[in-house]
Amino acid sequence: MSGKHFASDPKTLVRDSLQGLVFANPHLRLDDKEKIVYSQGLASLRERQVTLFCGGGAGHEPAHAGFVGQGILSASVSGHVFASPSSSQVLSCLRRCYSDKKGTLVVIKNYTGDVLNFGRAVERFKSEHVNQGKPQPKVAMVVVGDDVGVVNENDDDEGGVGRRGLAGTVLVYKLAGACAAKGGSLEKVKEVAEYVAAHTFTIGCALNAASVPGQGFPRTLEDDEIEVGMGIHNEPGFEKRKLEPATSLVRSLVDHITSSRPFKSCREDKTRVVVFVNNLGATSNLEMGLVTKLAVDAVKARGIRAERVLSGTYMTGLAMPGASISLLVLPEDDEAKCQEILLLLDEPAHCPGWINHTKATKDTESTEDFEKGPARTFTPASNALWEEAIDAAYKNVVNKEPEVTRLDQIMGDGDCGEVLLSGVTAVYDAAQRTELPLNNPSAALARISSLLETSMGGTSGIIYCLFLDGLAQSLKDETRGGATALSPQVWGKAMMQALNNTLYKYTTARPGHRTLIDALEPFANTLANTGNMEDALKAAKEGAAATANMKPMRGRAAYMGGGHEKVQDAGAAGLVAVLEGIAKALH
Amino acid sequence: MSGKHFASDPKTLVRDSLQGLVFANPHLRLDDKEKIVYSQGLASLRERQVTLFCGGGAGHEPAHAGFVGQGILSASVSGHVFASPSSSQVLSCLRRCYSDKKGTLVVIKNYTGDVLNFGRAVERFKSEHVNQGKPQPKVAMVVVGDDVGVVNENDDDEGGVGRRGLAGTVLVYKLAGACAAKGGSLEKVKEVAEYVAAHTFTIGCALNAASVPGQGFPRTLEDDEIEVGMGIHNEPGFEKRKLEPATSLVRSLVDHITSSRPFKSCREDKTRVVVFVNNLGATSNLEMGLVTKLAVDAVKARGIRAERVLSGTYMTGLAMPGASISLLVLPEDDEAKCQEILLLLDEPAHCPGWINHTKATKDTESTEDFEKGPARTFTPASNALWEEAIDAAYKNVVNKEPEVTRLDQIMGDGDCGEVLLSGVTAVYDAAQRTELPLNNPSAALARISSLLETSMGGTSGIIYCLFLDGLAQSLKDETRGGATALSPQVWGKAMMQALNNTLYKYTTARPGHRTLIDALEPFANTLANTGNMEDALKAAKEGAAATANMKPMRGRAAYMGGGHEKVQDAGAAGLVAVLEGIAKALH
Repeated sequence: MSGKHFASDPKTLVRDSLQGLVFANPHLRLDDKEKIVYSQGLASLRERQVTLFCGGGAGHEPAHAGFVGQGILSASVSGHVFASPSSSQVLSCLRRCYSDKKGTLVVIKNYTGDVLNFGRAVERFKSEHVNQGKPQPKVAMVVVGDDVGVVNENDDDEGGVGRRGLAGTVLVYKLAGACAAKGGSLEKVKEVAEYVAAHTFTIGCALNAASVPGQGFPRTLEDDEIEVGMGIHNEPGFEKRKLEPATSLVRSLVDHITSSRPFKSCREDKTRVVVFVNNLGATSNLEMGLVTKLAVDAVKARGIRAERVLSGTYMTGLAMPGASISLLVLPEDDEAKCQEILLLLDEPAHCPGWINHTKATKDTESTEDFEKGPARTFTPASNALWEEAIDAAYKNVVNKEPEVTRLDQIMGDGDCGEVLLSGVTAVYDAAQRTELPLNNPSAALARISSLLETSMGGTSGIIYCLFLDGLAQSLKDETRGGATALSPQVWGKAMMQALNNTLYKYTTARPGHRTLIDALEPFANTLANTGNMEDALKAAKEGAAATANMKPMRGRAAYMGGGHEKVQDAGAAGLVAVLEGIAKALH
Repeated sequence: MSGKHFASDPKTLVRDSLQGLVFANPHLRLDDKEKIVYSQGLASLRERQVTLFCGGGAGHEPAHAGFVGQGILSASVSGHVFASPSSSQVLSCLRRCYSDKKGTLVVIKNYTGDVLNFGRAVERFKSEHVNQGKPQPKVAMVVVGDDVGVVNENDDDEGGVGRRGLAGTVLVYKLAGACAAKGGSLEKVKEVAEYVAAHTFTIGCALNAASVPGQGFPRTLEDDEIEVGMGIHNEPGFEKRKLEPATSLVRSLVDHITSSRPFKSCREDKTRVVVFVNNLGATSNLEMGLVTKLAVDAVKARGIRAERVLSGTYMTGLAMPGASISLLVLPEDDEAKCQEILLLLDEPAHCPGWINHTKATKDTESTEDFEKGPARTFTPASNALWEEAIDAAYKNVVNKEPEVTRLDQIMGDGDCGEVLLSGVTAVYDAAQRTELPLNNPSAALARISSLLETSMGGTSGIIYCLFLDGLAQSLKDETRGGATALSPQVWGKAMMQALNNTLYKYTTARPGHRTLIDALEPFANTLANTGNMEDALKAAKEGAAATANMKPMRGRAAYMGGGHEKVQDAGAAGLVAVLEGIAKALH
């Protein structure tokens, strides 16, 4: 594996990246010396509400700067990749954010560097105030450690370094931020933050480590391995195991959370949770949808109700191909508090990193209404002339199929004859069973089109379908005035309309491109002009024959090299077989 | 490279993924048989406005279902990975969406399969209406081909297959969707969609192809290669080149757009654009910020104004490590139309895939206010006692540094002595130059703390800083009542407060963990209890000596194996050297 990056000078990478974020988000401001991103109108925010900021190493985007905005964070401060900002940077951020009226909350993830640097900034800020003869500033700090993926023997016993902060930290930003925006006091905002921090449990897993710009991969996993408990800085997890289907993998991750000591020791009854699924950076969104679905299934299977499901890219480890699952346990015995938490979660946050999951409202329609589609609108009926034409076309295609197949084997992928036979057989069978509305030409053609789509498939099938759909519409127009007899000339004009108004809207294939159009358009054109079926068939045959000398411009043959027998286009030859059969019957 | 995935049954992958999306987005509904995702309240939407839907193969998430919601799309329909939905699926979606009152717009990307299948569905829908004796339904279709990365010789000359649809398609969804939500007629909505489709130009590049679930990588690039013009289904680009710094790469991508025939032939003057930067799936968001910044720089450098900058993950090729840049050229000669386009872009869209970039409002404060930080609040002053203590501590550390270094070389990383010497030297130098506010103990300690942060760095530096910050605060409390003489006992009590109220908030290191705390706490505690400096120093020395038999629990030594000489902790020994110096001076 190679660790390639879009990168330039490592010294300016983080600063440049923040500048890009701010370019795309006009509500953000950048102090590019201190790598602080803050909300526009911060001065008035400080007057109105508790302010709050976060920070840490870069490489976790959208955390942290992507969560700055109305209803969530007031500011963030970034270090280098995977390294804490200095206490001077943090102090600068705190000075900028501090609300003298309402106070300020600092939220960080539990890593030694962050705890010491943010801690020291808070203490320096306090010293500053005290030395200026001001009262102690109202600054609180919440440290989040939501990881249940690493078992530390020393924890709990001797107050070890504690659990690491992972994606759950973003839930703390969101709920504390919403509480602050709603006018909550510093005590209240801190209480909310501490509730979320104490009741959120996260486990990550990854298919590989992430490459770090300028450093590459710290290690790589085997092709059939997955690592469980992986940290967001490539810290090893607690287990490498054989890659397994997502169904059992996700179930085991949820089981790991619910059987962890921190989850079990949290006081709630754990019957209602928020499910929070996070892309660690380089998992496809297609797969993220799958992981989300399976996580919800696994939670439900344990008898736990998923009150909310959030899924997105919140806290990354650069481009790590992995995902984390977090469960936020909701208060069980205090319905008011539970609703308050959910309300704070549902409040909109105006920042690029948070996905405002719109709440459902009551629907007035049911899904089932559409499942059957409109009722069948045609009545099957017999019609001797149509039945003869279908019969003759079918028999002629049966005869010509080997030749069409041979042509396609020389220049094409060899299935053209079979596909066509499959189509006409389906129509023949339906006519035999009197399943077609043959007393209504327009309805009959629409029905035949649908049969061809199912039985033929592929591009050539759809070309037939589109032509017949168009023809059905044109004939309807032709017959609208009354029960006009459909003369050959009317058919020819309707066919030209079907080409010009319908088929040519959707394909750029035209006569000269070596496709079935080389037979179809001459047929329709001659029929429209002369009303003579024999002449039209002759024109179709000549058109098909001329394809032998054409350079293929469309379809699969366009990708073939030269050096083979010059043969006519198989699709054109196949169409001629159909038309020849019909002409025989109508003769 | 290995193509690992979170995947289970390939037959259910797309359906399961859509289910996950719908779990996380309560405003969405899923027809899981037809893989249609639609907006809740679609029935009333059809009464109110032009409805619009899109679709295509899966693997491009959040496109397409992630853009369904109020203000953008009404529905989407998904095929298998990288394969068009069938016309029956599309027809089902059209039946569900169709607004009899206002009409319906279908937006797709220009790929043969999509054009034919969506086209056929539209034609079948029309046939259905006509066969039911209803008037022609109001359905329009816009096909987006924004790619300028592939030069097709046949284009323009003979109406070739045309340019492919890439990320620019999402801009069409957004603007047409906003126009529909504002009550625009079908003609108007289509006009907006066609404007955006005709004026958006995109080029992608990637560091590698994307692995497809069940298939793996179609091909891989070399470790030093990048591919330019890469499609969203791993289609090869027009050029492989040596990986280069992002600065020149991004500049060349923007140049490629602005020098392309489609860009140059578009009628506007190209002085104002929307810059749209898209993550193709697996580029880190850190790097996406960089690419965004550089794209804006490159546009500006060409004298073009970036009226809006959008950056995010909109149209992916699974987990492709790449990015695309799109430019939407704004109307130059028609200010009203330009403003209309921008207004439609700025309208909020309530779906998970679109990032609502908040508009800037006027700020009342300037960035500069905070750049200098608060003015210096202390006045340097001499103080004989403090200067003697600093002098003595400095000299004692100079003497003891070799021993501290030796201890740290045995059990640590060997830099402990040097780091400490660097710190006390900085303080000594400042005292020599009378730069410290020595007539104010609290201010003096705060200033010393700042000097130590800069000169020492690392974890041990911050531990000293935090302790001194706490001490500065405690002493301020002690002296608040008046100019109390700072007795040794007062110092001791203030030190205990600094430990308990400050330092211990940020570190879990305690006596017994083999750190400098093993000397510091006994010193502070004894001084607080006895007021006797000699006894306190003795306790510190005993504490430091006892660390020789401790198992390291914190700091770098915690990761060392056994089998070496049992020595005391270097950090504790270093602190003793400082305290011993001070004690000598104060004796």
